[in-house]
Amino acid sequence: MRTAFGFEIGDATLDRKITLTYIGFRDKKEMGKPFVVQLPDSDVITQPMAVFYGVGKEDSIMVDRLSRNKDGKVILDSNGAVAGGELYDFLGMKAAHNAEMTEDGIPIPPGVTLPLNVHAYYLEQGKLPDGLYAEIDLQIRKLEEIVGKEFGNPDNPLLNSVRGCPRITMPGMMATILNLGITPDIVKGLEKITGNKRFAYDTYRRFIDMFSDTLFWVPHERFEKVFQDVKNTWSIENDLDLTGSHMETIAREYLKLVKDSGNQIPYDPKEQLDLAIKAVFMSAYLPQAVEYMELNNLMGKSGNTITIMPMVYGNIGEDSGTGVSFTRNPNTGENKLFGNFLLNAQGEDVVAGIRTPLPLEKLAELFPDLYKQLILAGKKLEKRYKDMQENEWTIEKRKLYFLQTRTEERTALASLIIATDLYSEKIIDEKELVERVFPNEIDVLLHPVFDPKSEKKVLGKGTGASPGDVSGIIALTPGYAKELYQRGKKVILVRRETSPEDVGGMSASKGILTKIGGPTSHAAVVGRGMNKSVVCGYGDSLEIYEGNNSNRGYILINGVKLTEGEETSTNMLSLCGSTGEVIKGEVPTIESIIAQTAIGIAKQLIGQNQTEEDRAQIRFAEEHKNSKLYRAFNEYLEICKKHSKLGVRANADTPLDAAVAIEFGAEGIGLARTEHMFFQGSKTDAIRKFIFGYTEQMKTDGLAEMKQYHKEDFKGMFKVMDNFPVTIRLLDPPLEEFTFPDNDAINRFAEQLVTHYGGDRDGVRERISQQMKSLHEINPMLGCRGNRLSVMYPKLIEAQVSGIIEAAYELKKDSYNPIVEIMIPVANCAGEIKYTREEAEKVIEKVKARYEGVNVEYKIGTMIELPGAALTADRIAGEADFFSFGTNDLTQATLGISRDDGGKFISQYTQMFYNHKDPFVTLDVERVGRLMQICVKEGRAVKPGLKIGICGEHGGDPASVEFCHKIGLNYVSCSPYRVAVAIVAVAHANLGIEHTRR
Amino acid sequence: MRTAFGFEIGDATLDRKITLTYIGFRDKKEMGKPFVVQLPDSDVITQPMAVFYGVGKEDSIMVDRLSRNKDGKVILDSNGAVAGGELYDFLGMKAAHNAEMTEDGIPIPPGVTLPLNVHAYYLEQGKLPDGLYAEIDLQIRKLEEIVGKEFGNPDNPLLNSVRGCPRITMPGMMATILNLGITPDIVKGLEKITGNKRFAYDTYRRFIDMFSDTLFWVPHERFEKVFQDVKNTWSIENDLDLTGSHMETIAREYLKLVKDSGNQIPYDPKEQLDLAIKAVFMSAYLPQAVEYMELNNLMGKSGNTITIMPMVYGNIGEDSGTGVSFTRNPNTGENKLFGNFLLNAQGEDVVAGIRTPLPLEKLAELFPDLYKQLILAGKKLEKRYKDMQENEWTIEKRKLYFLQTRTEERTALASLIIATDLYSEKIIDEKELVERVFPNEIDVLLHPVFDPKSEKKVLGKGTGASPGDVSGIIALTPGYAKELYQRGKKVILVRRETSPEDVGGMSASKGILTKIGGPTSHAAVVGRGMNKSVVCGYGDSLEIYEGNNSNRGYILINGVKLTEGEETSTNMLSLCGSTGEVIKGEVPTIESIIAQTAIGIAKQLIGQNQTEEDRAQIRFAEEHKNSKLYRAFNEYLEICKKHSKLGVRANADTPLDAAVAIEFGAEGIGLARTEHMFFQGSKTDAIRKFIFGYTEQMKTDGLAEMKQYHKEDFKGMFKVMDNFPVTIRLLDPPLEEFTFPDNDAINRFAEQLVTHYGGDRDGVRERISQQMKSLHEINPMLGCRGNRLSVMYPKLIEAQVSGIIEAAYELKKDSYNPIVEIMIPVANCAGEIKYTREEAEKVIEKVKARYEGVNVEYKIGTMIELPGAALTADRIAGEADFFSFGTNDLTQATLGISRDDGGKFISQYTQMFYNHKDPFVTLDVERVGRLMQICVKEGRAVKPGLKIGICGEHGGDPASVEFCHKIGLNYVSCSPYRVAVAIVAVAHANLGIEHTRR
Repeated sequence: MRTAFGFEIGDATLDRKITLTYIGFRDKKEMGKPFVVQLPDSDVITQPMAVFYGVGKEDSIMVDRLSRNKDGKVILDSNGAVAGGELYDFLGMKAAHNAEMTEDGIPIPPGVTLPLNVHAYYLEQGKLPDGLYAEIDLQIRKLEEIVGKEFGNPDNPLLNSVRGCPRITMPGMMATILNLGITPDIVKGLEKITGNKRFAYDTYRRFIDMFSDTLFWVPHERFEKVFQDVKNTWSIENDLDLTGSHMETIAREYLKLVKDSGNQIPYDPKEQLDLAIKAVFMSAYLPQAVEYMELNNLMGKSGNTITIMPMVYGNIGEDSGTGVSFTRNPNTGENKLFGNFLLNAQGEDVVAGIRTPLPLEKLAELFPDLYKQLILAGKKLEKRYKDMQENEWTIEKRKLYFLQTRTEERTALASLIIATDLYSEKIIDEKELVERVFPNEIDVLLHPVFDPKSEKKVLGKGTGASPGDVSGIIALTPGYAKELYQRGKKVILVRRETSPEDVGGMSASKGILTKIGGPTSHAAVVGRGMNKSVVCGYGDSLEIYEGNNSNRGYILINGVKLTEGEETSTNMLSLCGSTGEVIKGEVPTIESIIAQTAIGIAKQLIGQNQTEEDRAQIRFAEEHKNSKLYRAFNEYLEICKKHSKLGVRANADTPLDAAVAIEFGAEGIGLARTEHMFFQGSKTDAIRKFIFGYTEQMKTDGLAEMKQYHKEDFKGMFKVMDNFPVTIRLLDPPLEEFTFPDNDAINRFAEQLVTHYGGDRDGVRERISQQMKSLHEINPMLGCRGNRLSVMYPKLIEAQVSGIIEAAYELKKDSYNPIVEIMIPVANCAGEIKYTREEAEKVIEKVKARYEGVNVEYKIGTMIELPGAALTADRIAGEADFFSFGTNDLTQATLGISRDDGGKFISQYTQMFYNHKDPFVTLDVERVGRLMQICVKEGRAVKPGLKIGICGEHGGDPASVEFCHKIGLNYVSCSPYRVAVAIVAVAHANLGIEHTRR
Repeated sequence: MRTAFGFEIGDATLDRKITLTYIGFRDKKEMGKPFVVQLPDSDVITQPMAVFYGVGKEDSIMVDRLSRNKDGKVILDSNGAVAGGELYDFLGMKAAHNAEMTEDGIPIPPGVTLPLNVHAYYLEQGKLPDGLYAEIDLQIRKLEEIVGKEFGNPDNPLLNSVRGCPRITMPGMMATILNLGITPDIVKGLEKITGNKRFAYDTYRRFIDMFSDTLFWVPHERFEKVFQDVKNTWSIENDLDLTGSHMETIAREYLKLVKDSGNQIPYDPKEQLDLAIKAVFMSAYLPQAVEYMELNNLMGKSGNTITIMPMVYGNIGEDSGTGVSFTRNPNTGENKLFGNFLLNAQGEDVVAGIRTPLPLEKLAELFPDLYKQLILAGKKLEKRYKDMQENEWTIEKRKLYFLQTRTEERTALASLIIATDLYSEKIIDEKELVERVFPNEIDVLLHPVFDPKSEKKVLGKGTGASPGDVSGIIALTPGYAKELYQRGKKVILVRRETSPEDVGGMSASKGILTKIGGPTSHAAVVGRGMNKSVVCGYGDSLEIYEGNNSNRGYILINGVKLTEGEETSTNMLSLCGSTGEVIKGEVPTIESIIAQTAIGIAKQLIGQNQTEEDRAQIRFAEEHKNSKLYRAFNEYLEICKKHSKLGVRANADTPLDAAVAIEFGAEGIGLARTEHMFFQGSKTDAIRKFIFGYTEQMKTDGLAEMKQYHKEDFKGMFKVMDNFPVTIRLLDPPLEEFTFPDNDAINRFAEQLVTHYGGDRDGVRERISQQMKSLHEINPMLGCRGNRLSVMYPKLIEAQVSGIIEAAYELKKDSYNPIVEIMIPVANCAGEIKYTREEAEKVIEKVKARYEGVNVEYKIGTMIELPGAALTADRIAGEADFFSFGTNDLTQATLGISRDDGGKFISQYTQMFYNHKDPFVTLDVERVGRLMQICVKEGRAVKPGLKIGICGEHGGDPASVEFCHKIGLNYVSCSPYRVAVAIVAVAHANLGIEHTRR
């Protein structure tokens, strides 16, 4: 029978497109109300309904009905229509890899896969296609032939696993049912054939649990409780000590549980299969899967398949078992097989983290041949998939069967090390190397670490499963974690173990601590993918007491009680995801190793070695700058820069920051905030003298001091940034920001004025207070700031510009090459830019006249940070040498949200209305981005090639950087510590890499 | 010789366009640095260089070289190329009118006009065209022929006036030189021929003064001083008592003054003419003229001509004189000749307001025939120009000569009365009537007047020359007036007299008081055009002492000293421009007569007649509603509405305001601010209970009270607005606005809570204070307000919407027809509108269910007041039934200027960068307007015919209304008292009337 979807395969004219309609449920309670999302049209056409892969009797490899063309793309076999594509576009990632392992000669059971369109058809039509089961029957017969067992035959039963296989991996999200096909009759047959009652009933009870959990929503926890009760009844500690009778009892109790829930497992294996297929398909749309897809930007990009695979039994005795291995260490990147296993167990025992498994070194001792087989297979798979692989496998009576291979999550550290190693090993090329590390992984590598000098109240140690040094408030449920997150809190989620339903809460947390489970447990794998700090398997010294409506929950950890939701040093918790340390209270952090190294190098560069701390940091840099990590880091960034179009600059206000930025690869300063220079120590008094001075003399003196400070500061900056452009923003904040914190400060300043200029103390204090009042604004963000200061107080232009430009001239005279870019902030029309520009140019001309024969290159440009400016870019372009988007303010004005006050509602808006993207973190493309596009287009229409950058916080956000690349900016500028992140983002944007998965 | 601009007239192929390049000087000191503005291309081509008009010897009318086509347009005569246009487009307004008076047989001396392109050529080429003087000679010969005198012949001298004539009238701005052609020889000849030495030397000294003031910038004041000195020397009070010898002495002293200034008046009349022509052309670009053109939006729209006219002499004896008359009263609109004159004087004496002239009634006594001639000519001119005319004329030996006619400025009251009268007299039609009154004139008629019940310290009385009841701080110089204005102050400018150089300062003032000059003086005429309150000719009881660097100036007015710049009741000044009263201190104002009448009618309508005040107001309305003024006002508005496309609604929060709006012609409420309802008395406590209540019960009670208040308030509103739509805006301000003004208020409220709900007084007070702190925002304008409140506190939606909608249902049940439009404020994305809309609809459905068979029409729409909303109009249109631009907030966000704090810099920006337009008064079309256009276009692309209005302050601003009309809005909404202004603006926009002049 050669039909699929009701028409014959091979009739190429019947290529109909199926529109994938996405049906999901946000909440189990809402299962009755599916929500529908339109997915992009599928290009997959006229596929067969079931594809078989496996090794035939004569060792011939069979991938039924599919074959590859010369480009390695998969096409339907001679009976089907042509449809080139990747194998996983037909079979889903997991089944595709299994088929490919079969091709590669790696031992793996055969399988039958229902490809993507079967699922699509099911969603679209609400039923499975006609003829599907006939097709499945046909294919299962091949499985029976190969393994020599028969589906439904008690005398020689074939049991199958039914595995959900999404097109793109979603670890643990889709249901899997093992041991399907077992019935009361067959369990007896199984006992008889194997003579192993324990195995037979263990297999049976596993099936009952999984099937009922998936089909009838009888929670696994209830089965688990029954299991524990039986163990308690017989006082049995270890599962392995349970006998066949125990298992029989357990299976009977399990059946009772199912019956009590009002359900009945069919006795017919084919009926079991029918229900299982439907349930596995639907599992892709359970709330946790929807949440995962949303978090990982997979909505509308997935689609699912199902693979039916004969069981191999790891639970058939002490010469059997099951394990998970990584071809390289996913925590450190080390090129060494890493993983763990359990004897006499089935797969889910390891992955679910229920029993704490053994390390692979133990396997090497017990079964050295199998260990070697694992290593060799791993290397082969790495070559095919060009990346570190995670493998699940089962040993049935000393024979190794692979069950799956996949490219698995890893820590940021491992990501960088593995990628650069693969590049050295010539497994991947430059572009692939760039693709392989994600901008936020570089960010994580630069995350702060606990200050080693701080005192830490270490409570104990679990398994460090995903690095990160974090502190936060305790939450004991995912819901509460999300709530705290929305209130702007840092959260540590503490759970017995995590499950797919916890994903949202994990995402909202900085760190995750679990009681049970090892480095391959759900918490570890998922937390690693989210770049969370994870400490797992803390053990029994951690007791968790969840709260209820009237009482807060708490934990006892080595006897210390910590209450959830309390933001106090006695209740907060800190985790070190590398060492596994769990610490009471909040621990201060310092820069990461990479950052510290860069700072040390920068200090050496600018000759800042006066204090012991400076010297210690320089020594630290000496030690670490040739480390594998630091070298990998630099090598990677260098290659990224080779593949970039956008430049990356830094926002820096001090020579040290500038030097750090250079060390990280910045190509200039995109934003030097002059007001920050006046916030330092006594420099504030200079500008205060201008603001609060009540005679011309005081004001003139204040301006002269300001100028002098600028001159000194910029000489320092220009030296470090020799030959690099330095964009200097004139004063931005309202003058109110320079007022006094308290009366003491007023008195001190008044005293200073009186000492220098004479006058009456009280009178002076009164004048200062009056002036403070008159400076007060109700909405300072929309008040007298930025260029408005220059317009209202033109003498500020003279003080600032002459300081800056004299610094440049003096250095130029000394053979440096300062490149000065003066930037006008908070302007909304061309006229005011022209005004300030002309005033500044007068000042520059005057300075120039004093340095004969010297000429400093300079530009005068403006920030675009008000919608009004973006909308008159054509006119402004006539007055400005460059634009720089100040996207913080631009976002603020466009959305009408104050960054200072937004906290109250912005997280609510982010979740409810902004697609979970905080517009102050990731550019609001639709609105703010649109203004930027208008501005770029209209500005360059007047002045082709106009240089345009961005210097808001968004300049370091990968998604925003991608947008900046798209609209043709010249550079992004961000904080020195994000320069490296931006460099990666810029390269990724240039190579068009989509960040769907992380 | 038939050439102009160097080529022969008649050669039609040589039609070159001259680009008018505008050259002006902002400041006399900057005369060396002209600034250049490109003017639109002139369509005027191949014009002759000099045009003659006049009545020939045989009474044949000659307008040389120009003739009219059948449409009345002017074309060049048979020798010239065809170039249809209005006469003033060739000759300038003044000369064109003179030519037309000649056509109409009104006695007027002939003239020779150098048309617009001569001036354009002069500006472009920097020299006068070749052959110009030959052409002038040719034409002057015609003048000589008609008047029987000879230019430059001492025995029978022709003296001329050389008058600047702008294309569009600019009163007093362009220079005029009288008596040109007089020389030492000629003055003697003049004496000999006339036997009148006084006349000869008076004429001479006038020429010396005017010529030197204009050419050499020897200030007129210096001549005036010499004149006074001579009078003092001989103890002569009255000018008329000066003899011929006196005049000769004065002339000699004048010549000395000129010599001392380093200048020399040419003895050759032709040389005088050459210099005069150039100086008069340049006078159009002196600072005061530039300022006038900027103020009146004339920049680039004018262009100038010069007319050479034989002198007629009003200073030749007691049977001669000079005067100014208006065909109707420019203050009241009364249809009666109005004006004044001086005997034995020349024209400038009356206009400059130097001698206080006699009323026309005196002329009727002295020369009844001439008075009658004036009336008849006036009526003839009114028919031609379809408007009230101002005429200048001279009587030379009992013979009347008109010198000019023009449509002159008038008060707002006169404007309305004259226009409606002309309409009744069928001189103008409906459209012309609409055009004739300007929106801001209607505004002036609604301006407040002094409260008759307030006590007024009347200092004295001058001539009420332009009505308006105003108070302000005194400024004695135009510069200081501008400075005070920029600081946001109300200013009264006090001057001896005003001159064209004062125009900027006058514009910055609310009122103008002068010591000398009558109702046709510069202060009166210009102040009237600016709708300022003007009291002139106060007389000697006003002494003005201008200040200097160390001392403030002051005035003594009837002995009372008032200091300039002082904002205190003892130093401020009030003017009543109708009665001429000058009052010490600030006088409280009440609504104008029209407004009071409307309020009385409104009170009667809503039955508000409980208090004596109410009843008095209703009586007032009864008295005034049939007055000429109120009838004219209503008639005019009705006709405006017939010629409108845009609707006009009102912003109103009370039934009384709503009723006033209806009386003024509003078609609905465009904005009812629900928060204003809670600002009234105890209603604030309801919302406070919700905000500060710390138990669910308190909050619930607060919400219930809020709902109840809304229900009552809206029943009142809906009754008044039966059948009219009422747009109700949900809560807009941050909750902080409902906090307490002081501790007493907190205590009172705490007491109230404790009384109702129990609890500890101190604890409650503490909670309230804490909550106040937590509500505080740094930038409340960008904080938790508008729809953010609905999102964060969804129960507010329920309370507000249920109150509103229940009110509507109850009235509908009682056969009213409420039309409810609920409006969501401060939203920036479609999602949040959808959310609030759905929540509101749930509430509405619930209410609806309780009123069986009743159905209230409702819409739910949104304000567009953030750039982000305007930029996603397509999506928002999917969720909203209507849009309403909140242009206050939209301007604020687009330009990044807080209205609360902008005062500090916004007037500076308005002047320096915003073309003198405050963007919070007149829409910033380029930026805010662009966003509006995007929004309208994209919103309607999704939802064709989407109803869009505007409810910001701009809704009542004529220029902004014009823009709203242009982009196709459906209605504007403004405060009730601006509804009438908006109705006019809307009609004007529809008829495409440009408001260039006012």
